[in-house]
Amino acid sequence: MGTRIVVVGAGMVGTEMVEILRKRPRFAIEEITILARTERRMVIDDEIYAVEVARPEGFDGAKFAFFAGTEGEAGASKEFAKEAVRRGCIVIDNGSDFRMDPDVPLIIPEVNPKALKGHCGLIASPNCSTIIMLMALAPLHRINPIAKVYVTTLQAVSGSGTDGIRELEAQQRAILQGSLFEREIYPHPIFGNVIPAIGSFVDNEHSSEELKMLYETQKILGRKIPVYATCVRVPIMNGHSMNIVVEFQNKIHDHIFKKMCDTLVRSPGVIVYDEPDKGLYPLPLLATGKDEVFVGRIRQRDLYTLEMFVSGDNILKGAALNAVQIAELLF
Amino acid sequence: MGTRIVVVGAGMVGTEMVEILRKRPRFAIEEITILARTERRMVIDDEIYAVEVARPEGFDGAKFAFFAGTEGEAGASKEFAKEAVRRGCIVIDNGSDFRMDPDVPLIIPEVNPKALKGHCGLIASPNCSTIIMLMALAPLHRINPIAKVYVTTLQAVSGSGTDGIRELEAQQRAILQGSLFEREIYPHPIFGNVIPAIGSFVDNEHSSEELKMLYETQKILGRKIPVYATCVRVPIMNGHSMNIVVEFQNKIHDHIFKKMCDTLVRSPGVIVYDEPDKGLYPLPLLATGKDEVFVGRIRQRDLYTLEMFVSGDNILKGAALNAVQIAELLF
Repeated sequence: MGTRIVVVGAGMVGTEMVEILRKRPRFAIEEITILARTERRMVIDDEIYAVEVARPEGFDGAKFAFFAGTEGEAGASKEFAKEAVRRGCIVIDNGSDFRMDPDVPLIIPEVNPKALKGHCGLIASPNCSTIIMLMALAPLHRINPIAKVYVTTLQAVSGSGTDGIRELEAQQRAILQGSLFEREIYPHPIFGNVIPAIGSFVDNEHSSEELKMLYETQKILGRKIPVYATCVRVPIMNGHSMNIVVEFQNKIHDHIFKKMCDTLVRSPGVIVYDEPDKGLYPLPLLATGKDEVFVGRIRQRDLYTLEMFVSGDNILKGAALNAVQIAELLF
Repeated sequence: MGTRIVVVGAGMVGTEMVEILRKRPRFAIEEITILARTERRMVIDDEIYAVEVARPEGFDGAKFAFFAGTEGEAGASKEFAKEAVRRGCIVIDNGSDFRMDPDVPLIIPEVNPKALKGHCGLIASPNCSTIIMLMALAPLHRINPIAKVYVTTLQAVSGSGTDGIRELEAQQRAILQGSLFEREIYPHPIFGNVIPAIGSFVDNEHSSEELKMLYETQKILGRKIPVYATCVRVPIMNGHSMNIVVEFQNKIHDHIFKKMCDTLVRSPGVIVYDEPDKGLYPLPLLATGKDEVFVGRIRQRDLYTLEMFVSGDNILKGAALNAVQIAELLF
């Protein structure tokens, strides 16, 4: 008999979670139940799913409950995650509600799998930008501890879910047809623009997205590393990219630099794509649909500092895939 | 009797130069002649211009010759600029051919007007990203010398001229209509993508655009400041933005920080737009069509380091306007 699984959320991340669960062979799945705010039917991989309204009994008998989460706002996990744990599920939450809870492990399987030990049934998956950044930085941090990070992100609208996609598409169509411009979820038009503001501003200095990259990195790496992030929304559908300046604690002599690059090449889930004169560097369009995070434009700036450009699929490794991988670790 | 002016180039920058020259009252213009590779007619502000084929005699009798330049490639300025000087013109070149020539002043009027002194008839206007960055940094540099810069740019396709605009538009239309995707001038699709490669790669580490930001800054500020640039093309029509991390030589105590911010607010050509919680920060869509460069998201990172986000119109202040302002300085 296989595993019973509940997925909470029928948006982009929830759908992707179901697709990944169906594809990956580690689970002999008996049944996947999708729960959401409202009843509906969904077709995933030619199979019809009857989405049920989320309520406590919906979690009975399931081994894993995946919460797709909604970026920036309190979602279903606040209402149901602890109840699901009480009813015997292991909850893996992609939302931000529990990430900084000291009792909840915050996991990237390739980075800090050991932090899963002794979990209490509720496990959090980090913010998409944090995951993509740490896939590139954590292997280096193991060789040469990170002292400081400056990161500028270029984030796709799929990070805001279906609403983000819909808003960019509507604005594209409106501009090309000369019709009225719709704006609902972003504070400014996103088509034809880049917006250096993701989430809300807590203190006029840091956006909530930027603070997530700071605090989640510190929790995952277990060190008070200053991560100075500037998060920018760009008008592309999918794939987050970022330029990272990273200062290390120890000198990067030539042989250390070589070792760091070699380590990155061998790191699971990472593809080094770094031959700029041949047109090979990370691109969001290249990363879209891939499980791996792409790293390139690696440049040594001084004896302590490297700079690199990274792209990853924010819906896959940045969300759904990472959550499924956490379950696989436990299985 | 007014001034006779020649504009070489009938693309975006050339057209914008003519529009600015017509608008700005410092020139009593007798005539503007547009020269280009091929004959044609152009309508600018309801006036018909008969574009003539560029040849040496075309420069006779003109006081100023503006070369619109073409990014990254040797343009008409290589062929005609020195000839125009011999024929009595003051040449202002927006292209990159002469910028690093030690005999040619490289000028941003608000930043280094004194470098014009003793010019030999040929004056260069810097790269668009260099201008936009230095409009924000130079006023601060006067108070507290800059030690180091990390900059990540998000550059619009208009930086590649009409061809860039055409390519993005064609790809947008193709995607929405499901038709074939054209790609000519960029190494990868630009629609739905961001490309961390502008210009060509000279050494697999620095793109030509990134080196322009380094060397031009050093020439303009007269100091060997390391400018570590990562230049990224983004799928927007117009307006370059950049996130800048800047380390200063002297400590930025509170009163110095206040003084630096005040100076920026009072700097001509700069608008400080920095109330993120009210949605006020630089945006390329906001900067488009404006003469000023917008600076915001100003954050102090440590005792020596500030970070800020800057947007400017790359065709206006980044090119045509700066060139015209150079002529105004001389007038």
